[in-house]
Amino acid sequence: MSLALFLVDSLPAGSRYTLDGPEGHHAADVARLRVGEELLLGDGAGGTARAVVDAAGRGRLELSIVERWYREPADPRLVVAQGIAKGDRGELAVQAMTEAGVDEIVPWVATRSVAVWRDDKPLQRWRSTAREAAKQARRAWLPVVSAPSATAAVAARATFVLDGDAPSRLSTVDLPASGDIVLVVGPEGGIAPEELAAFRESGAVPVRLGETVLRTSTAGVAAVAVLSARLGRW
Amino acid sequence: MSLALFLVDSLPAGSRYTLDGPEGHHAADVARLRVGEELLLGDGAGGTARAVVDAAGRGRLELSIVERWYREPADPRLVVAQGIAKGDRGELAVQAMTEAGVDEIVPWVATRSVAVWRDDKPLQRWRSTAREAAKQARRAWLPVVSAPSATAAVAARATFVLDGDAPSRLSTVDLPASGDIVLVVGPEGGIAPEELAAFRESGAVPVRLGETVLRTSTAGVAAVAVLSARLGRW
Repeated sequence: MSLALFLVDSLPAGSRYTLDGPEGHHAADVARLRVGEELLLGDGAGGTARAVVDAAGRGRLELSIVERWYREPADPRLVVAQGIAKGDRGELAVQAMTEAGVDEIVPWVATRSVAVWRDDKPLQRWRSTAREAAKQARRAWLPVVSAPSATAAVAARATFVLDGDAPSRLSTVDLPASGDIVLVVGPEGGIAPEELAAFRESGAVPVRLGETVLRTSTAGVAAVAVLSARLGRW
Repeated sequence: MSLALFLVDSLPAGSRYTLDGPEGHHAADVARLRVGEELLLGDGAGGTARAVVDAAGRGRLELSIVERWYREPADPRLVVAQGIAKGDRGELAVQAMTEAGVDEIVPWVATRSVAVWRDDKPLQRWRSTAREAAKQARRAWLPVVSAPSATAAVAARATFVLDGDAPSRLSTVDLPASGDIVLVVGPEGGIAPEELAAFRESGAVPVRLGETVLRTSTAGVAAVAVLSARLGRW
């Protein structure tokens, strides 16, 4: 098993660290790490350290840093504009895409999005889901979950749009060598024709992923997997 | 939107068909298809037909077949031996892999499987999940969900084992040109060292998928996506 990863605001410059607050509570009281056991500390911005527990108290651990490393940010970046989905499908999508290494998720307010985000709570749920999934996956970089965007704003960034009727395949289409690769995934009801037209007009290329119909919570992670393999990340 | 697909035991030889039983109920009373509307009929064994509603009654539709086509079975076949997972993670894995086109799922009774299948019900749930996901995805072939298998039986068939520490990558490893490609995915707790040894001894190749830790419900669909792209299925 991989060591558990706990997120910190910044990694210490020296060799000692006190893990307290919510992550300290989780490490000391829930995961119940004991003296001599190891864990990972991550700043969610490329920095990771392996540490050993010197002392364990209620809600806090005293740690010695054993080694540390830094990962450069990815280039090209993988961005998915995810059509807002109802129920827990949006969170399942965020969770799986985060595990698979997506760099940014843009909640897309699509015509056919059944769920309407009336306040800040759904966005906070996506963000906390991404954070937890990134810890679970031991990611060095937390994915960005952007503010919800309307079609025009998504179209301005879109590189590819998943569309089952597209002649091009995501598995063979030319990929940008750097910058953002922004892929649009529709909500449960799919992408409306006028939305598809807007994406095309902005220069986005419709692409398909196989011949079967992928649910909105499956399409994004499948696309990230294919792109990660093609880009040599995996 | 794609037409809805309903599963039938066998497609009719002629041009008329009466859809009744559970699928007829679903089509007539739940989806509420009306005269003149179209649907797909699939036998789950390669055959699909497009049909139009001639008459709608309670729990049944009278249909005319408009066109029909047949898809050959896939070769190589994609098989995932999925470590039995607790809660709804197993069903999420089955659902996503089915949408992505897996040909067979083998429930693997792993050392670290927390859930124990004491009766036939969990297998029946995996099978009905696969059936519903195949309809949703408009698949021509239903995936096979095999009986639960112990490690020795899985090892006898395994081609690859997902293992985060493996030197080989699933995205670049040589693939068999035909027959079954059987990939082993561990349960939540991962694959035990003695299991990994058994798989290696049987000739299975450990492979990794990226550098992050994928949850058991994400690993299978990500692997199927990468293999589908590499095999030219997608």
